[in-house]
Amino acid sequence: MSRHPLSSLTEKEILLCSGLICGGYGDDKRLRFKGITLHEPSKEEMKMFETTQTVPPRRAWVNYYIKGTGFFYETVVNLTKRQVESNQRVPAGFHGPCDDAEILEAERITLADPRVQAEIKKLQLPPGATVVCDPWIWGADGVADDVRQYQCYMYLRAPEHSHEPDSNHYAHPLSFSPVFDTVTMTVTRIEYLPTGAGFETKPTPTEPQRLTAANEYIPELNAPLRTDLKPLVVQQPEGASFTVSDDVIRWQKWEFRLSFNYREGMVLHKVSYDGRALFYRVSLSDMSVPYGDPRPPFHKKQAFDLGDTGAGLMANDLKLGCDCLGAIAYQDGLIADDEGRPLWKRNAVCIHEQDAGLLWKHTNYRTNRAALVRKRELVLQSIITVSNYEYILAFVFDQAGEMTYEVRATGILSTQPIDPGVHVPWGTVVHDGVLAAYHQHILSLRIDPELDGDSKNSLVYEETKPLPRDPKSNPHGNGYIAYRRPVLTSGGYDLESSMNRVYMIESSKVNPVNLKKTAYKIRVPPMQPLLADEDSFHYKRADFADHSIYVTKYRDHELFAGGQYTNQNRQTTGVRKWAARQDSVVDEDLVVWVQFGLQHVPRCEDFPVMPAEIIRVSLKPDNFFTKNPAIDVPPSTQASNRSTLIETSKTANESCDGPRL
Amino acid sequence: MSRHPLSSLTEKEILLCSGLICGGYGDDKRLRFKGITLHEPSKEEMKMFETTQTVPPRRAWVNYYIKGTGFFYETVVNLTKRQVESNQRVPAGFHGPCDDAEILEAERITLADPRVQAEIKKLQLPPGATVVCDPWIWGADGVADDVRQYQCYMYLRAPEHSHEPDSNHYAHPLSFSPVFDTVTMTVTRIEYLPTGAGFETKPTPTEPQRLTAANEYIPELNAPLRTDLKPLVVQQPEGASFTVSDDVIRWQKWEFRLSFNYREGMVLHKVSYDGRALFYRVSLSDMSVPYGDPRPPFHKKQAFDLGDTGAGLMANDLKLGCDCLGAIAYQDGLIADDEGRPLWKRNAVCIHEQDAGLLWKHTNYRTNRAALVRKRELVLQSIITVSNYEYILAFVFDQAGEMTYEVRATGILSTQPIDPGVHVPWGTVVHDGVLAAYHQHILSLRIDPELDGDSKNSLVYEETKPLPRDPKSNPHGNGYIAYRRPVLTSGGYDLESSMNRVYMIESSKVNPVNLKKTAYKIRVPPMQPLLADEDSFHYKRADFADHSIYVTKYRDHELFAGGQYTNQNRQTTGVRKWAARQDSVVDEDLVVWVQFGLQHVPRCEDFPVMPAEIIRVSLKPDNFFTKNPAIDVPPSTQASNRSTLIETSKTANESCDGPRL
Repeated sequence: MSRHPLSSLTEKEILLCSGLICGGYGDDKRLRFKGITLHEPSKEEMKMFETTQTVPPRRAWVNYYIKGTGFFYETVVNLTKRQVESNQRVPAGFHGPCDDAEILEAERITLADPRVQAEIKKLQLPPGATVVCDPWIWGADGVADDVRQYQCYMYLRAPEHSHEPDSNHYAHPLSFSPVFDTVTMTVTRIEYLPTGAGFETKPTPTEPQRLTAANEYIPELNAPLRTDLKPLVVQQPEGASFTVSDDVIRWQKWEFRLSFNYREGMVLHKVSYDGRALFYRVSLSDMSVPYGDPRPPFHKKQAFDLGDTGAGLMANDLKLGCDCLGAIAYQDGLIADDEGRPLWKRNAVCIHEQDAGLLWKHTNYRTNRAALVRKRELVLQSIITVSNYEYILAFVFDQAGEMTYEVRATGILSTQPIDPGVHVPWGTVVHDGVLAAYHQHILSLRIDPELDGDSKNSLVYEETKPLPRDPKSNPHGNGYIAYRRPVLTSGGYDLESSMNRVYMIESSKVNPVNLKKTAYKIRVPPMQPLLADEDSFHYKRADFADHSIYVTKYRDHELFAGGQYTNQNRQTTGVRKWAARQDSVVDEDLVVWVQFGLQHVPRCEDFPVMPAEIIRVSLKPDNFFTKNPAIDVPPSTQASNRSTLIETSKTANESCDGPRL
Repeated sequence: MSRHPLSSLTEKEILLCSGLICGGYGDDKRLRFKGITLHEPSKEEMKMFETTQTVPPRRAWVNYYIKGTGFFYETVVNLTKRQVESNQRVPAGFHGPCDDAEILEAERITLADPRVQAEIKKLQLPPGATVVCDPWIWGADGVADDVRQYQCYMYLRAPEHSHEPDSNHYAHPLSFSPVFDTVTMTVTRIEYLPTGAGFETKPTPTEPQRLTAANEYIPELNAPLRTDLKPLVVQQPEGASFTVSDDVIRWQKWEFRLSFNYREGMVLHKVSYDGRALFYRVSLSDMSVPYGDPRPPFHKKQAFDLGDTGAGLMANDLKLGCDCLGAIAYQDGLIADDEGRPLWKRNAVCIHEQDAGLLWKHTNYRTNRAALVRKRELVLQSIITVSNYEYILAFVFDQAGEMTYEVRATGILSTQPIDPGVHVPWGTVVHDGVLAAYHQHILSLRIDPELDGDSKNSLVYEETKPLPRDPKSNPHGNGYIAYRRPVLTSGGYDLESSMNRVYMIESSKVNPVNLKKTAYKIRVPPMQPLLADEDSFHYKRADFADHSIYVTKYRDHELFAGGQYTNQNRQTTGVRKWAARQDSVVDEDLVVWVQFGLQHVPRCEDFPVMPAEIIRVSLKPDNFFTKNPAIDVPPSTQASNRSTLIETSKTANESCDGPRL
């Protein structure tokens, strides 16, 4: 069986890559692999494959370091020919992402470092106290950031839970911060964190640690738990309504291919509904999380959770009956570890259905007959842990042709120490001695459309505005109209809720009912754009975070809004640069980048672990179909749903008044 | 057992009201009742009741017409003293709402009217064809609208389904429209609808009807239905986690009282969480649905679905296993009919729990231990049918102290005829000969807070903005801050997403962790305000629809954003007038009115029945609690959830590569 050109790499292919590359260096060189993944075929090649079954060559994209140096390479391996096609050093100023092994090693080395131990000693901790080190990505400020480094944030476990490895150390941040060099794999210096008020940037030297109350998230340390929540069981006696076969998922007229890589995690290819093509490729393309504390070293704090670490790399091993309910299929992801070996991310994606209330209902008031169908959804979920924080990422499909990308932001706030009684305007005190700085989460969803099988799509926006009052055409002042305007050139574009501005992707085909172009509209909540100023490194590194919509003309391998290398870079090489080509995007093969996010001003309620904040972006048909595409969903019936009646006094009215009239 | 002062009227109390009032007119006068409902005690009385158990007198609010006249009355009955306390004629220009009996009678009379029959004859319909009449509320244009009237829209059933009473006649709108007078209960004239293009307002005289294809929503007329949707059953083997007792609902630390009336439907009173007071009263207070077609008679089209008809009056009889899943309790609503008799709205409210994915999760990447809890929600749902259209209205509570009001807009578009090949800028052709005009849905949620038991609440807004770049205080340009400002006086206020402006209700108590005022924030999606111009009747009748937030100082009986009488009025007497008092709202007993809605530019996909558009407004604790209030929710486990594993080839990678490494 030959592999589909868009299928993720196999174990053999990964081993072939690392073998070929290591072979080139001989045995004495040690490499640190930062990613081995499918180098997807060009669209041209895919078109050939689809029309003539010509299988394009399999290629891999590989990033690696030569250990003990900052030499970082990007390599394309032709797997079909079993040879390295290109191998070049990545320009200075660009770095590879973190990896699990490196982070754990940095922790170990940092904690064992004598200067770190000396700082710990100054804390005068009770016997048996446990100090924890969280290496954080460095960010960038253009100062001494040529070498890839970690900013290590240090924490204490609550002394009473010193031996509980899942004690929440984020409730006890310490005020010194080792700097870790990834070339030498050593601590290079200790920095001290500001813990005072106002704009003072003076760091606080390490002093005996004030011990504070624990604030734990694991259940056994939060007894008594609630006892009045009764089980809720989702059963699917006839099994699931979806099928998964050779990475192709089919459900309720939807069909698409799922792949998985270390950076984006889940990627959807060739999404169609009822046999009509919709999207060539959809994935979360990037995310930036800039923090608002202006004081060093926090001024550099800005995580790119995909480019700096990777949504595939950090995917959780999902457990049956925990992360979702009902009949669940799991997909493993295959990535490479730091030594270039295959690394299975077990159960990285779960696939299940859920009920989502009513999809449509109408009751004829004359006959009292209600016609109604419930809304079933298909969910592909992957959950990533980025150090302290979690994102629950999901593609959600409904039966009416709508596809939603949902993000739930949860996990533990990134915390820092603050002196008692102090308050600062860029953070919330969420626990005694604990500051949670304000931060933004700005995500970018990349949508490569092929509506109605057409590589000639356009981006338009629709607005609604009043008609001017006019004795002949709008005599009563109630008239208003909607109109569409094309986006002519690649660039960044904004929402405007006062105009109800909605962006839509149009095909070049028309709906036979009303002759409008068949389209999908993009429903995205407005966001506050990046707050860092335009001259800041925060801004230059996340310059996609200034507009809700970017559109570019398609070019192969332009996949990540923040560019190929986000970690510790000083500016992007991403969507903004591509958009600046000022390409025409009318009736073109175009890519739409949808930015959305949260302004997170933490609350006490977000600690010690945060109730998920939910954000959704939807792609919704707009005159794509000739009628409600869910009109043929079978009605909701008790025979199938088997609900249970809970008897109560139906209302107090009755019990007071005796029998009903 | 004595009734709680906030309990809805009983059957006996309703009969007492109508009996007392009818008695005053003698037997020869015939009255048409338009509402008999609890006249809620004043807050002063409720405070007395809560502190000294002094039971206030029971009172009812009654509206009625003297039949055959436009004389419309509002009456307060003291039920405790069994006497009419006040009875006065409502000023000219204000009218009572529709009622079921009147609508059905108007239909019958209209269809039998000789002029209407003459119009039908001109259609030259095939034998057995069925014409349907939908009386619509009149709206207002200041022209000949002193008398309360219906604008009757006429439709044809698809000839092939002439005998199917649930055939979708909205797919075949006719171009004549009888005007119905509710005083004489007769058709007064026939109007002709514009069916052409552009701004022409020339009506189309009735001609032989062009027959078009059916477009049906009932399942048996949409065969074949999908056959690949497997059952999904929600079971709660130990029953529900909520209790309902004498109208008081308790669930997961929430406690509140539910009442029901003909106008608002569900009303929540005395909402608390974990023993801490939150809201004195919450309900949907009003809704306006203005249409954008400027041509008569559509220029008047503007429905106030609560004030013109009533969310309680139109509540569906919900069915087990159809409208929700799991263990479900139903509450009946008791209202009065047009003759002043008790009318039970059976199963008007359903109460059930639902799973809503993960509430929070954290995985310790060092131990790989995942702590996670699922999000259970309590839903109180009521579904209303307003002629062609449906609203699914729900209060949703979660375990983290958040309360959401959810609206799902579904049902059938209000349609009008359009000539073949014609397109207009204020509507979408959704089927051959069928125009669905653009319209807005603007709803108003009334929140009367008493945070932390305090009648001294304030409304504040929080914004986030960059710090100016400054070498000392913001040297890197990344700094940003949040700040809160109080809203000082009653008025209308706006969102501003570029500032991340969020409104919050603050108590006068402080959170011990960070000394911030305990607060609830209001999360409301931005809406496009009412588009009709400020001199239009649309605007004057819905002047609450111009701002996302209104705040007023509390006064008894100020309940409805659009005023007491919306039907066919020429201007409101509602929240805008009350806000214009310019009361101080700092540390006051205040009321917050949250406006939200949809700009509905119909799509083909919204016909013949519309996939629900979902809008949510949330009230979310903000430093109200000292930590995540859901930290004590028991973990999600397979033992309780009993999910099922669906075996698939885990990935295609594996099947190609043989056994795992």
